[in-house]
Amino acid sequence: MELTFVIICALAALAALVFVGLLAKSVVSCDPGNQKMQDISAMIQEGARAFLKREYTWVFSFVIVIAIAFSVLPGFLKDIELGWPTAMAFVIGAVMSALAGYIGMSIATKANCRTTQAAKTGGLKSALGVAVSGGAVMGLSVVGLALIGLVVVYIVSKGNTVIVNGYAMGASLMALFARSGGGIYTKGADMGADLVGKVEAGIPEDDPRNPAVIADNVGDNVGDVAGLGADLFESYVEAIIAALAIAVACNLSMGVEKSSLTAIPFAVVAVGLLASLLGVFYVKKFGSSNPQGALMGGTYISAAVTIVVSGIVIWFIGEEYHRGGDVYGRMAPFYATVIGVISGVVIGFVSEYYTSSKYKPVQRLAENSQSGAAITVTEGTAVGMESTAIPVIVLAIAVMIAFELGGFYGVAMAAVGMLATTGMVVTVDSYGPVADNAGGIAEMAGLDPEVRKITDNLDSVGNTTAAIGKGFAIGSAAFAAIGLVSAFLVSAQLEESAVSLINVHVIAGLLIGGMLPYYFSSQLFRAVSNAAYRMIEEVRRQFREIPGLMEGTAKPDSARCVDISTQGAINGMLLPGIIAILVPPIIGFTLGPETLAGVLIGTLVTGLLVGIQAANSGGAMDNAKKYIEEGHFGGKGSDTHKAAVVGDTVGDPLKDTVGPSINILIKLMSVISLVLAPLLIG
Amino acid sequence: MELTFVIICALAALAALVFVGLLAKSVVSCDPGNQKMQDISAMIQEGARAFLKREYTWVFSFVIVIAIAFSVLPGFLKDIELGWPTAMAFVIGAVMSALAGYIGMSIATKANCRTTQAAKTGGLKSALGVAVSGGAVMGLSVVGLALIGLVVVYIVSKGNTVIVNGYAMGASLMALFARSGGGIYTKGADMGADLVGKVEAGIPEDDPRNPAVIADNVGDNVGDVAGLGADLFESYVEAIIAALAIAVACNLSMGVEKSSLTAIPFAVVAVGLLASLLGVFYVKKFGSSNPQGALMGGTYISAAVTIVVSGIVIWFIGEEYHRGGDVYGRMAPFYATVIGVISGVVIGFVSEYYTSSKYKPVQRLAENSQSGAAITVTEGTAVGMESTAIPVIVLAIAVMIAFELGGFYGVAMAAVGMLATTGMVVTVDSYGPVADNAGGIAEMAGLDPEVRKITDNLDSVGNTTAAIGKGFAIGSAAFAAIGLVSAFLVSAQLEESAVSLINVHVIAGLLIGGMLPYYFSSQLFRAVSNAAYRMIEEVRRQFREIPGLMEGTAKPDSARCVDISTQGAINGMLLPGIIAILVPPIIGFTLGPETLAGVLIGTLVTGLLVGIQAANSGGAMDNAKKYIEEGHFGGKGSDTHKAAVVGDTVGDPLKDTVGPSINILIKLMSVISLVLAPLLIG
Repeated sequence: MELTFVIICALAALAALVFVGLLAKSVVSCDPGNQKMQDISAMIQEGARAFLKREYTWVFSFVIVIAIAFSVLPGFLKDIELGWPTAMAFVIGAVMSALAGYIGMSIATKANCRTTQAAKTGGLKSALGVAVSGGAVMGLSVVGLALIGLVVVYIVSKGNTVIVNGYAMGASLMALFARSGGGIYTKGADMGADLVGKVEAGIPEDDPRNPAVIADNVGDNVGDVAGLGADLFESYVEAIIAALAIAVACNLSMGVEKSSLTAIPFAVVAVGLLASLLGVFYVKKFGSSNPQGALMGGTYISAAVTIVVSGIVIWFIGEEYHRGGDVYGRMAPFYATVIGVISGVVIGFVSEYYTSSKYKPVQRLAENSQSGAAITVTEGTAVGMESTAIPVIVLAIAVMIAFELGGFYGVAMAAVGMLATTGMVVTVDSYGPVADNAGGIAEMAGLDPEVRKITDNLDSVGNTTAAIGKGFAIGSAAFAAIGLVSAFLVSAQLEESAVSLINVHVIAGLLIGGMLPYYFSSQLFRAVSNAAYRMIEEVRRQFREIPGLMEGTAKPDSARCVDISTQGAINGMLLPGIIAILVPPIIGFTLGPETLAGVLIGTLVTGLLVGIQAANSGGAMDNAKKYIEEGHFGGKGSDTHKAAVVGDTVGDPLKDTVGPSINILIKLMSVISLVLAPLLIG
Repeated sequence: MELTFVIICALAALAALVFVGLLAKSVVSCDPGNQKMQDISAMIQEGARAFLKREYTWVFSFVIVIAIAFSVLPGFLKDIELGWPTAMAFVIGAVMSALAGYIGMSIATKANCRTTQAAKTGGLKSALGVAVSGGAVMGLSVVGLALIGLVVVYIVSKGNTVIVNGYAMGASLMALFARSGGGIYTKGADMGADLVGKVEAGIPEDDPRNPAVIADNVGDNVGDVAGLGADLFESYVEAIIAALAIAVACNLSMGVEKSSLTAIPFAVVAVGLLASLLGVFYVKKFGSSNPQGALMGGTYISAAVTIVVSGIVIWFIGEEYHRGGDVYGRMAPFYATVIGVISGVVIGFVSEYYTSSKYKPVQRLAENSQSGAAITVTEGTAVGMESTAIPVIVLAIAVMIAFELGGFYGVAMAAVGMLATTGMVVTVDSYGPVADNAGGIAEMAGLDPEVRKITDNLDSVGNTTAAIGKGFAIGSAAFAAIGLVSAFLVSAQLEESAVSLINVHVIAGLLIGGMLPYYFSSQLFRAVSNAAYRMIEEVRRQFREIPGLMEGTAKPDSARCVDISTQGAINGMLLPGIIAILVPPIIGFTLGPETLAGVLIGTLVTGLLVGIQAANSGGAMDNAKKYIEEGHFGGKGSDTHKAAVVGDTVGDPLKDTVGPSINILIKLMSVISLVLAPLLIG
């Protein structure tokens, strides 16, 4: 039975990839606009590719070193033979994620000028079509490639979870560098462009005279498209492998070789993938009349179809299971899946409430900005901190219920449920940056302001769904991490009493693990401000030294700025990355697996809090500024607006660098520990 | 033997109180200066007393309700008879802490104008004497009253730890309201006074025309003197009672009724108290020639004497002990004490490194302020986050070593060691606000600028030792909390396997507990900005409506501002306080003691991080501003300075409201749980 669903999964993934090909072709065949638009788009493409090339070179240097270490070390350390197959799976995981990022970003950077052109000639309706197709290429590449790779590794390794875990670790390593590197890149460029361009030179956003504007637009793609894609690629794979690892442990405990427990995760993700295709179709079909409604509708439809069809499938294939004396019902995995989907939606709506200008927190933040920038930042911090309460409580309750219903397998299945519709979520999230870029091109190419209005409208339409998507990303990361840690505890054969709070090693681990997200964040902040600082210097230099630049008669040296951002991102991502990679083996081999368990949970707890707070403080300050720009409390140019701009700039690295990177820190440390678990036994 | 040391403790405490009387008399007999200075001082005194009266009224309303609940409920819930004696001990704890705060603050508010006058007539030398005496009254009242109360409760209850725990809980409740209320008061007044006075009206700090200046000066006393005193009163008591509770459990496990384990904590604090008296003598004797050196010297001498004499005492009275199969040597409590003192000093120095303008972090922060306020705040946040790394690692290692050496008793003794010299630490910390107030009075009374220079010098001398004192406060709070949680686990008779990370209830507890410091902080931030907002409105109103105020011919209505701050502080402290009080019983009685254990550790981990980050981010931004004011990067009035002022204002509630209050949240929740533990068994 398991093989049937594995094959269905593979077929669904292939269908997604065929669809990716068709969408990509349709995007490329659109009118790319006039020469100037094409030139700008080409510069963005070139910059993005150059960054990816540098980033991938570094990532694969790490990948090779780690793969060699994996192949060689276990033989020395322990009498286990899993070294090189795990290393291979690890390499495949990194390659698949990199490939998804490359494809998604190539098409996204081609879709941008085509969206602009569509807005110019066909209005909102056609522009939406192009932008959604661009986003869907990323979304469906992520799930298609993730599943194809996973299925291959799973079949070849005959379902050996240790090897399969290596695949997830490859995806995780890629995600870490994509998120932190991309996050540093995008905010270094953004802050640099804004602080000199808007504040000092007094020229508008996306003005072609600003040398950092191309870098800023490249940043949207490498951060929000490739970074986000790699992030959800990882969560998606990890949710599945955590469920598989726990399923195998359950089978062992029940004394059976196979059960439906290993088939169900494949069944649910296959259903979720097909439901995502349906969701994308729906958006493309009905998006023209009501874009906002269509995006929400597509998201809801894919979630609803996933729930209903998964329920039917599990009804047929589910069977009672037990582990350590606890017996769970046949439909337990289904209920857990539903819990996952519901809590993801609730967490998404809380993010929306705290960060949208439709609700009180952002409006009050805008109002308080009248007392100056310090109060804006203080209140913005307070909003983010307050916003952690409901998501954490929901998550804690969801974990307890999922466990009550289905044990740790239930917890892992809740994560699978949450992530089954990843294809749709990434589509919606990637569509935003395409629209954003399209607006930038309209501005730089000097098109009619009407075109910019259309792209701005497109951009804002995606914001609500994007907020919900962020909630999904954070919630699912936490669920996946809890699943991974559980799998780690099982795999390292730790006794309950060994990882007790009465053990001071566990307490010490919790303290150290809790501190890591703080230290990690501090290094990311510093990397962003260093990159921004160097960008500011360069832009100032160009304005000073290139004659005719301000008058618009000379061209800026955009390539130099792209290079500075790339360099800053690469430099900045190395230290945090190395910490994330080295802490689990160092703690595990010196202080033991109990301390490591404490470290993982400590990182999960504070990482979740820092992540939610950063995302929501940043989002709230961004939208408070926009709300003031709409004419409230004095509008653009007022002192209130100036205070809000400071808040927005403080929020930039919070929401786009630190917030998203913390998710990966949590997941990467957990998956590395899971892979190392066999070496830590005893 | 135990009784001998309890009596020695009582005698040492009485000696401290006699010394308090002599110091108070010497302060009061100093020349209070001219009528204007006396009037200002009287207004500050009046404002501080009015606030304390309101605060104590609220606190004792809570105290009475909780005492009644304690007397009545246990009889209903369980068949235990400890209700009313615990309630009595609880009331005594709150009264003793309140009394210490009242005495300390009364003398501190009398010492301020006398310090100004001494600076005017006798220069730095005499001013230091008066200010140190003022601070020592607070420092020695805290330890004297804390110990007298503890000894009485201990003797009357015949060492029943459940009853003694009630005493600590009373101290903790008082500390929560003193810290959060005082913190909101001082920063609401400070931000209000600065934002209108300095920024809008363009008048200098402490200008007598500013209606909020008196409230600001009152705030220094209620926040930094009474709040800090209550905080360390609590840590001091809790370190001792945690050691006693664990000692009793060890005795039980060894099957003996008494051992030296209950005597040693009393011995060490008696030694520490006498050593603190010595330290204060030293400062008063040698302070005139080299104030900075004398303050550091006094601190070191009291720590060194405590270590040496404790070692000798434990050498004589210590005995081998064992618990659950582990055997610990006779000198184990001494080594643990030393670990505590050393790690406290290291943590203090790390705070100093990250917050003093002598070192790179603050200098770089000042330099980066050249890129604007957003970069200042981002970099300031990064500095605070980075600064958590070493203290947390030191703490984790110290806990592991202390446990290795002496089990949980060793961990508790490390906290006792750290806190034994509380008398000296509070003296040094309380001396700062007296000097600060003295400067304010010099300004308001229009004295020669030379006088202000002397008081500023006095103030800055205290800063280094104050930073080390803050490190002590945070480190000792963490140690005390770990001791309390251990005592809770022992008292609630929880099995190792019940509080395992494999139990999802524990994980859920860790998540919820981790979130509480975030939510708690968000409410404090909001209370400060609300109080500041109302203060701003009132000051603007007075400038508008009182004719001749700006010209200096009319007097401001300072009492109205004092009232606004008081009201804001009282309103703001209630919600966070109620949360801290109610969470342990609610979680304990609904989700069980395992979940509660998770909540306590979760709160400890994130609370520690938020506390250190808030204190150090705030301190760094404050000192970066001062560094710029000394003439670096453009100096006062430059754009860089303006950016740094925004950073300083953001840092104000971080370092003086959120940072210190979080310590209490951790401790209060732990001690409430410890008191409730007998009701949660089974």
